[in-house]
Amino acid sequence: MNLYDGGVTSPQGFRAAGICAGLKKNRKDMAMLMSTAPCTAAGTFTSNLVKASPVVWDQNIVKQTGCARAVVINSGVANACTGRQGDEYCLETARAAAKALGIRPEEVLLASTGVIGRQLPMDTITEGVRTMSGLLSDTREAASDAAQAIMTTDTKRKEIAVTFELSGKKVTIGGMTKGAGMIHPNMGTMLCFLTTDAAISASMAQKALLSCVQDSFNMISVDGDESTNDTCILLANALAGNEEITQEDESFRTFCRALELVTKNLARRMAADGEGAHALFEVRVTGASTKEQAVTLAKSVIGSNLVKTAIAGHDANWGRIICAMGYSGAAFDPGKVDLTFESSAGSVRIAENGVSTGYSEEEATKILSQDEITAVIDIHEGCQEAVAWGCDLTYEYISINADYRS
Amino acid sequence: MNLYDGGVTSPQGFRAAGICAGLKKNRKDMAMLMSTAPCTAAGTFTSNLVKASPVVWDQNIVKQTGCARAVVINSGVANACTGRQGDEYCLETARAAAKALGIRPEEVLLASTGVIGRQLPMDTITEGVRTMSGLLSDTREAASDAAQAIMTTDTKRKEIAVTFELSGKKVTIGGMTKGAGMIHPNMGTMLCFLTTDAAISASMAQKALLSCVQDSFNMISVDGDESTNDTCILLANALAGNEEITQEDESFRTFCRALELVTKNLARRMAADGEGAHALFEVRVTGASTKEQAVTLAKSVIGSNLVKTAIAGHDANWGRIICAMGYSGAAFDPGKVDLTFESSAGSVRIAENGVSTGYSEEEATKILSQDEITAVIDIHEGCQEAVAWGCDLTYEYISINADYRS
Repeated sequence: MNLYDGGVTSPQGFRAAGICAGLKKNRKDMAMLMSTAPCTAAGTFTSNLVKASPVVWDQNIVKQTGCARAVVINSGVANACTGRQGDEYCLETARAAAKALGIRPEEVLLASTGVIGRQLPMDTITEGVRTMSGLLSDTREAASDAAQAIMTTDTKRKEIAVTFELSGKKVTIGGMTKGAGMIHPNMGTMLCFLTTDAAISASMAQKALLSCVQDSFNMISVDGDESTNDTCILLANALAGNEEITQEDESFRTFCRALELVTKNLARRMAADGEGAHALFEVRVTGASTKEQAVTLAKSVIGSNLVKTAIAGHDANWGRIICAMGYSGAAFDPGKVDLTFESSAGSVRIAENGVSTGYSEEEATKILSQDEITAVIDIHEGCQEAVAWGCDLTYEYISINADYRS
Repeated sequence: MNLYDGGVTSPQGFRAAGICAGLKKNRKDMAMLMSTAPCTAAGTFTSNLVKASPVVWDQNIVKQTGCARAVVINSGVANACTGRQGDEYCLETARAAAKALGIRPEEVLLASTGVIGRQLPMDTITEGVRTMSGLLSDTREAASDAAQAIMTTDTKRKEIAVTFELSGKKVTIGGMTKGAGMIHPNMGTMLCFLTTDAAISASMAQKALLSCVQDSFNMISVDGDESTNDTCILLANALAGNEEITQEDESFRTFCRALELVTKNLARRMAADGEGAHALFEVRVTGASTKEQAVTLAKSVIGSNLVKTAIAGHDANWGRIICAMGYSGAAFDPGKVDLTFESSAGSVRIAENGVSTGYSEEEATKILSQDEITAVIDIHEGCQEAVAWGCDLTYEYISINADYRS
């Protein structure tokens, strides 16, 4: 079971397209996904009380039918805080796609990302839908075009695929995602689209997705702002021909392991490509009594602006890490905490039993100057652990967000 | 009841000093406060699980005796995450001060701010204590020296005083504070020292302090990081000669109003002087069903990195405000929200019933380019409201914190 350079068209029967529709200047801004066969559809969405219109649209489909055939995605405009007009534009978009693809509007999922509070330019959207329906293709290139089109302030496309066996059949999962800013998913994620040719029931697909999102997208934070548009969709079209997964058996667990490889890979890359980020910052809390305690502590550390600016400055200012653990709300004994920094340049023990080891600042700075840094925090209570991913907070984050709309 | 340009030496019987002890290069870094008469002492402290040694020291004194005579404060080193050694250094500092001032060590409160994880240089500290005890004075200058010495990355001294009458006697409250970074107080505050010559019992002083801190320091956020050292102390030496306040009567309410004038003034200035801040950002949530709902919504908005970077860019990116309200955890109807931006340049209605009013971006930018900006958010549910203060998030915040220790 290995990851490889694939994308949403890697599983059988999935086609994609990505184009410059004209929402943004000279950049791809619309994508379409389509399966030649009907799919079960699972989804997790933002828990923000303020939900974008396409989020509400998708939630209804996932809840009511659990079936879909296509996804239409635009960047540039989030279609959030747009009132009833925004809801009507969702219906219009789905109708345009259904007509062009010869399916029903209720089989079309939607996703938007971009500026909140602006209405979609519907002429551009419907023309984009028509154009894309003529370009759909199952090539590697088409998947990459789609992955490119969903980007906002991302600097890199994020795609991956994995192949494995289920009841003697070769099964593939492909995925693409976008992240960068307003990234602090909670029971949802940023825009992420996962495709698979596995045969799996809607309820098992939903269960697999929820479990994988929990340990991947829900463990990253770029800026603590949970979006109105977070959407993660899994489409499964059964073309691999495996025995359908309908219960939590060995096949289900294999499928979950494969799906988790994909979601963790994409989540790490989303954190590493956070707005303005120069470094991926991984926090591993070990020796916890409960998983929940480990999760709370790890997320508090990756969420701290002061920790993130210290990482940006390659500064082993470890007190900020202990401080962020202290205000997390989780109980622990500060006097028992061991802290180690690790990267490709080596590893250095910074604190033992809650106080400084008298480590070499020079050595620590060398380790913290790499582009992937891990803080291992052992709280010496039990055997549970959790891993969270964030990034450093740099000048570029300010620059990107102070002028986002101009 | 008016605020005036005073400080901790404004009430009768209080003396202060502030010096360059040598913890920092060529900058004042130690302060001392002393009352000629015994004081009742009230205090609120950080709710961070990780508490600096001086916080634990002060909590014991406030809880056990509620009496104090002097405070010794240093900047540069936080004496947090310093283990038993840190606790012993507190005792040593208090003993040195007690000896120099002819009082008991249990009458000496302590506060530290600066780098976490480093031990105090005790020779410097004890020499500083001796020097300051010879310099104590009740002049305006002495108060300002002390206010200067407690600063870290603050750019401005923060002092204020108020005079009023209680049972026919003139009473004064003076205060000084420091803020700037790691500012997200919760049932405590940053370093803040309040003096008064009012006669008030220890339990009433504590009650007044808690109530005022709730609506002032606990309503500001610079970066979401709650410090290990947050400390707010009120010393009352009774020299004004008013009838001692021992219950929640009219005098108590007058005292609270005066104290709140001081704490709100200092809190606003702390937010305005947040690390790297160019603007004070005030958020006023009105029309709430409960005070708690208003507080939760207001604090979520001032805490959002994306809102703060938009303010830095003078950008009326109002969707980020609604988004931050949405993930706050408080319930409200997004379709009923009205949002107005106000500053000395005027006022502009940005959104009504949750959607854009089609306001002029040019006008909005002009209003958002001032150095004090207010967002008024009406959720049209009831008559409760709350005000929170924050600041914009700028390049300078990154610059200050990426290189804090170097």
